[in-house]
Amino acid sequence: MIFLKNDYSLGAHPKVLNALVETNMIQTEPYGLDEYCAAAAQRIRNLIDCQNADVHFLTGGTQVNLTAISAFLRPHHSVIAPENGHICVHETGAIEATGHKVNHVITMDGRLRPADLRAVVANHSDEHFVKPRLVYISNTSEMGLIYSRQELAALRKACDELGLLLYMDGARLAMALSYPGADLTFEDLPKYLDAFYIGGTKCGALFGEALVIVNDTLKEDMRHLIKQRGAMLAKGRLLGVQFDALLKDNLYLELGAAANAAAQKLIDGLKAKGYRFTLPPKTNQIFVLIPNEKMPMLEENVCFERWTGSTETHAAIRLVTSWATTEAEIEEFLALL
Amino acid sequence: MIFLKNDYSLGAHPKVLNALVETNMIQTEPYGLDEYCAAAAQRIRNLIDCQNADVHFLTGGTQVNLTAISAFLRPHHSVIAPENGHICVHETGAIEATGHKVNHVITMDGRLRPADLRAVVANHSDEHFVKPRLVYISNTSEMGLIYSRQELAALRKACDELGLLLYMDGARLAMALSYPGADLTFEDLPKYLDAFYIGGTKCGALFGEALVIVNDTLKEDMRHLIKQRGAMLAKGRLLGVQFDALLKDNLYLELGAAANAAAQKLIDGLKAKGYRFTLPPKTNQIFVLIPNEKMPMLEENVCFERWTGSTETHAAIRLVTSWATTEAEIEEFLALL
Amino acid sequence: MIFLKNDYSLGAHPKVLNALVETNMIQTEPYGLDEYCAAAAQRIRNLIDCQNADVHFLTGGTQVNLTAISAFLRPHHSVIAPENGHICVHETGAIEATGHKVNHVITMDGRLRPADLRAVVANHSDEHFVKPRLVYISNTSEMGLIYSRQELAALRKACDELGLLLYMDGARLAMALSYPGADLTFEDLPKYLDAFYIGGTKCGALFGEALVIVNDTLKEDMRHLIKQRGAMLAKGRLLGVQFDALLKDNLYLELGAAANAAAQKLIDGLKAKGYRFTLPPKTNQIFVLIPNEKMPMLEENVCFERWTGSTETHAAIRLVTSWATTEAEIEEFLALL
Amino acid sequence: MIFLKNDYSLGAHPKVLNALVETNMIQTEPYGLDEYCAAAAQRIRNLIDCQNADVHFLTGGTQVNLTAISAFLRPHHSVIAPENGHICVHETGAIEATGHKVNHVITMDGRLRPADLRAVVANHSDEHFVKPRLVYISNTSEMGLIYSRQELAALRKACDELGLLLYMDGARLAMALSYPGADLTFEDLPKYLDAFYIGGTKCGALFGEALVIVNDTLKEDMRHLIKQRGAMLAKGRLLGVQFDALLKDNLYLELGAAANAAAQKLIDGLKAKGYRFTLPPKTNQIFVLIPNEKMPMLEENVCFERWTGSTETHAAIRLVTSWATTEAEIEEFLALL
Repeated sequence: MIFLKNDYSLGAHPKVLNALVETNMIQTEPYGLDEYCAAAAQRIRNLIDCQNADVHFLTGGTQVNLTAISAFLRPHHSVIAPENGHICVHETGAIEATGHKVNHVITMDGRLRPADLRAVVANHSDEHFVKPRLVYISNTSEMGLIYSRQELAALRKACDELGLLLYMDGARLAMALSYPGADLTFEDLPKYLDAFYIGGTKCGALFGEALVIVNDTLKEDMRHLIKQRGAMLAKGRLLGVQFDALLKDNLYLELGAAANAAAQKLIDGLKAKGYRFTLPPKTNQIFVLIPNEKMPMLEENVCFERWTGSTETHAAIRLVTSWATTEAEIEEFLALL
Repeated sequence: MIFLKNDYSLGAHPKVLNALVETNMIQTEPYGLDEYCAAAAQRIRNLIDCQNADVHFLTGGTQVNLTAISAFLRPHHSVIAPENGHICVHETGAIEATGHKVNHVITMDGRLRPADLRAVVANHSDEHFVKPRLVYISNTSEMGLIYSRQELAALRKACDELGLLLYMDGARLAMALSYPGADLTFEDLPKYLDAFYIGGTKCGALFGEALVIVNDTLKEDMRHLIKQRGAMLAKGRLLGVQFDALLKDNLYLELGAAANAAAQKLIDGLKAKGYRFTLPPKTNQIFVLIPNEKMPMLEENVCFERWTGSTETHAAIRLVTSWATTEAEIEEFLALL
Repeated sequence: MIFLKNDYSLGAHPKVLNALVETNMIQTEPYGLDEYCAAAAQRIRNLIDCQNADVHFLTGGTQVNLTAISAFLRPHHSVIAPENGHICVHETGAIEATGHKVNHVITMDGRLRPADLRAVVANHSDEHFVKPRLVYISNTSEMGLIYSRQELAALRKACDELGLLLYMDGARLAMALSYPGADLTFEDLPKYLDAFYIGGTKCGALFGEALVIVNDTLKEDMRHLIKQRGAMLAKGRLLGVQFDALLKDNLYLELGAAANAAAQKLIDGLKAKGYRFTLPPKTNQIFVLIPNEKMPMLEENVCFERWTGSTETHAAIRLVTSWATTEAEIEEFLALL
Repeated sequence: MIFLKNDYSLGAHPKVLNALVETNMIQTEPYGLDEYCAAAAQRIRNLIDCQNADVHFLTGGTQVNLTAISAFLRPHHSVIAPENGHICVHETGAIEATGHKVNHVITMDGRLRPADLRAVVANHSDEHFVKPRLVYISNTSEMGLIYSRQELAALRKACDELGLLLYMDGARLAMALSYPGADLTFEDLPKYLDAFYIGGTKCGALFGEALVIVNDTLKEDMRHLIKQRGAMLAKGRLLGVQFDALLKDNLYLELGAAANAAAQKLIDGLKAKGYRFTLPPKTNQIFVLIPNEKMPMLEENVCFERWTGSTETHAAIRLVTSWATTEAEIEEFLALL
């Protein structure tokens, strides 16, 4: 089977795994108060050029989203998010379970624009409505697209005007920042965002995400709030060790670039064969239409997911590459079609 | 000022008020365990022809909705509701504050159909999604429309197929059941619904709503859950006294009919003058378009609310009648236009 | 039956009831934005000599407690309360249902002291513990005792040192402030408290409590938070009308004094007959020991509640007087013993 | 530094680590639906001799506790726990954050008895109280003690009488079951418990805990509830791989026995030197009194935690051994004293 189902099914990049193996028998302070977490956090502060950012390491994306967002809000605050955003559909109502409504915005490509924010705020006028307070975006978006620096700056500006916080889900940040031609950099993030996370799980780590809080007013007692949600790993060191290895020598962006390169090869091959996409493909998630008659063969040989957008004659599927996808796998896949 | 702003701004119908005055100095068991609540509950069981229904009296609509719905659900359950439903927009995220996502269904007239339920359930397939479990409808709907017996039966059938509970917000149940030609009766309600409430606040009471639970599996420990939400009135008797007076001698439906009759007179007058409506008007909420140039005069003389649906030349407004709206007020209003 | 079971079973004082009757057919802005609420709020600001206090009217004590306390806290904050405090035992976990732990402090008389606060804070040192943030006291306490001005000032001082908010449940504030020899006054309250409520239900109103927020940092968006908890009465005017009547011409304190006077007569009579108390009796709640052999007779003629503290030979019971308790009732009761 | 601070600061047992390394590049189904999790779950079902138990793998103890307990309860249900239980003190109110009160029971050794359960239930009589529904015990207890089969059977019997669920926190289950003379076995657990977890983090895993649900009525939709709390690891396989290695060839109990043996050597040495304990020491947590004058020397050479129970002349400290504690470390420590 060729595996193009997702980017979170294999283990860690060998350098990350080695770091875990080498430090295995060392005993440190628990709960992330060790030197490895300190070093990894400092590495992040240097990367984003923001020395007063707070960095916390957690184990998974849904966990970061629910812990951070609920920590930042008062009970009547809501979250604005694209209707296909991860928190809207694939987290089993985790945000609502912390008490907060999510205002869904219809958007094909999973990206929000300033006008979306203004429209939601305009519709929430008094105390009978929730009060929109935080904007959730993801980069890459749930549909694999990215934000330019200008687009992110415009969202920031709108948030400032509207009294909103801007939070970025960076589950696939490696792919977003390493995409050829992407002008957004690590250093830009603290300029435009109140908080974000640097995804590890899908970008070379065994598991783990790094939550970065830029806005000073959101930092207080964050460790209490992480612990309360069951999100503070006893052996917090495991996360520090991984992120330290992942962010050293540009490995993180290299892994993102590798996933993107494999995707591009796949896109080029599909285009050459005349395949159509339900959305213009960009990073490592590709939404493509497959003639119904080819589906049985594909399902026999390839691991992938069906997606929304099928027609009478074609099935919509999602193909995902990762840092570990090989050229041989892509060629084998293309040969199948 | 002519008051057409809403149906919950004056006090109680004189018969209800008198009942409160007459019983004022009597001392009874607190928290709804008194004989007045018992009598009112029995009156309701008789009215709906369902002797094993549980009846609880609470003070307001948002309170009933959040208390009942959160009592009926497990944490991962969601609520299906029309996107203009009261719980979706005008209750400050009260349902989400109890931990549950509300799945919004787009519907112009505020009414749900079986196909809506099927579509939502079909989109929530596995453990990464919330699990739709309860359907919230209101009768009259948020836009003043009603459900026929056949429509309600069809929703019940769909709910049974899909494993869903059916709950009706009856804030304006008096208007719904007394609407000329409406075929739904009190006796029908327990046949099709798992739970519902009989609205008092907008239908002649000083305040208060009667929650009726039909489905046996939803009854357990309901008094604990009411108390926990701060929804158990110490002097619960006040609610029993009111509902006893309100449901005696058909007063409840007479008050609904009075509100509807005033509305019909208003609708007829508006139609005669050529006014258009944003939705075909039915019960005591009328959504009408007013030429912009008449708005200043109207705002000076009439108390009402602006609504969504305005055009370049016309303002959309909502007019609401109540059991206390007089013919003279309607005539005066029509004369203004 | 002589009714000494509680102080919340009859209706409203005639002056309050008359005010409701007289204003019954007036139509005002809903949700507490009317002139009656404005007038009552201003009356309260004048009474407590604090012109920038925010005043909100809600329908019951548990509702005020859960709404206010959850509005003031972040998710990891806890509440310090006496273990026999109303929120600890008699509100079905309403505070915990909003997500907050209550730290119980053992205290016989239901009153907290500065040392209690220091001990709790000292035991909650890092992020593995909840962070105590709000102190809940009631005056009169759950056992009928009161705080002196000096005691309240000492609690305030401790709260300031420890970073704690001080909140007072005033369900029986009328009895506390009108107790002979009590030196605490309405004007003292905003000096020492961040927020409190003036109880109406047990002090002459039909129903309703007035939440007063003194601390500016706790005021923001309070109406959103009230609405979200289902605690915003549609006909908010009903509460304004009642508090306006209740606070006019010193009626509120007169009713508290009447309840206390009835209690004192009862206490004197019991003492004269040699009865012992489980706690030194003070205001309108009296905890007395009754010889077992007299209990059947008492239960036949008097409505009251059994309490904790019984011995082998004596039953502990609670007797409660109200503004409506008559001298004749007290005499009749004493004659029974 | 000699490390006796806790049992969760080093990495994984080499066999567990090797299993992770060997499977690193394999791609499987995500979210615990892979063959490794299936195999580990089956291993557990065989170990406990209960083929219809449900097994779920999560990443940490607080996470399991809050996810499982909140999944099993309705909103008004409370949890009975020893006041020094982990959920009472060291989880930042995680249970309360899901909406449930924890009823604290005073107990020196961290163990509950049937009389404790009866007393709590007796004090919660009607709808003004929370309804106790689940009993939380830990084995070993927070103070290092264990339950015998007879004691656990007695708790089960009391739970059945009182309508309570029995849940065991098995963070240190390896030490409990492997303690010399302990008569409780893996096979006993499903006979007496509704649910429990087998701790990995403190017993040889890199991280992870195995939640076992025995009671059929608690199983429904558990994967939804795990996902909603952010507790479903994307690469769920990592947990299956670890538990499969840990439970093979009796490794799990061997590691518990190793920790206990190191503790016993420490206890014997301390006793021989005349040291006193704040509680009779049993498994791998030892609570011992150290003369104040020796504390500076100890703090310079040993990593440990201070504990409650100090006297004027002695400091109470906690010493913890793990599967990796060496004889040399124990001897070095004893030589220091």
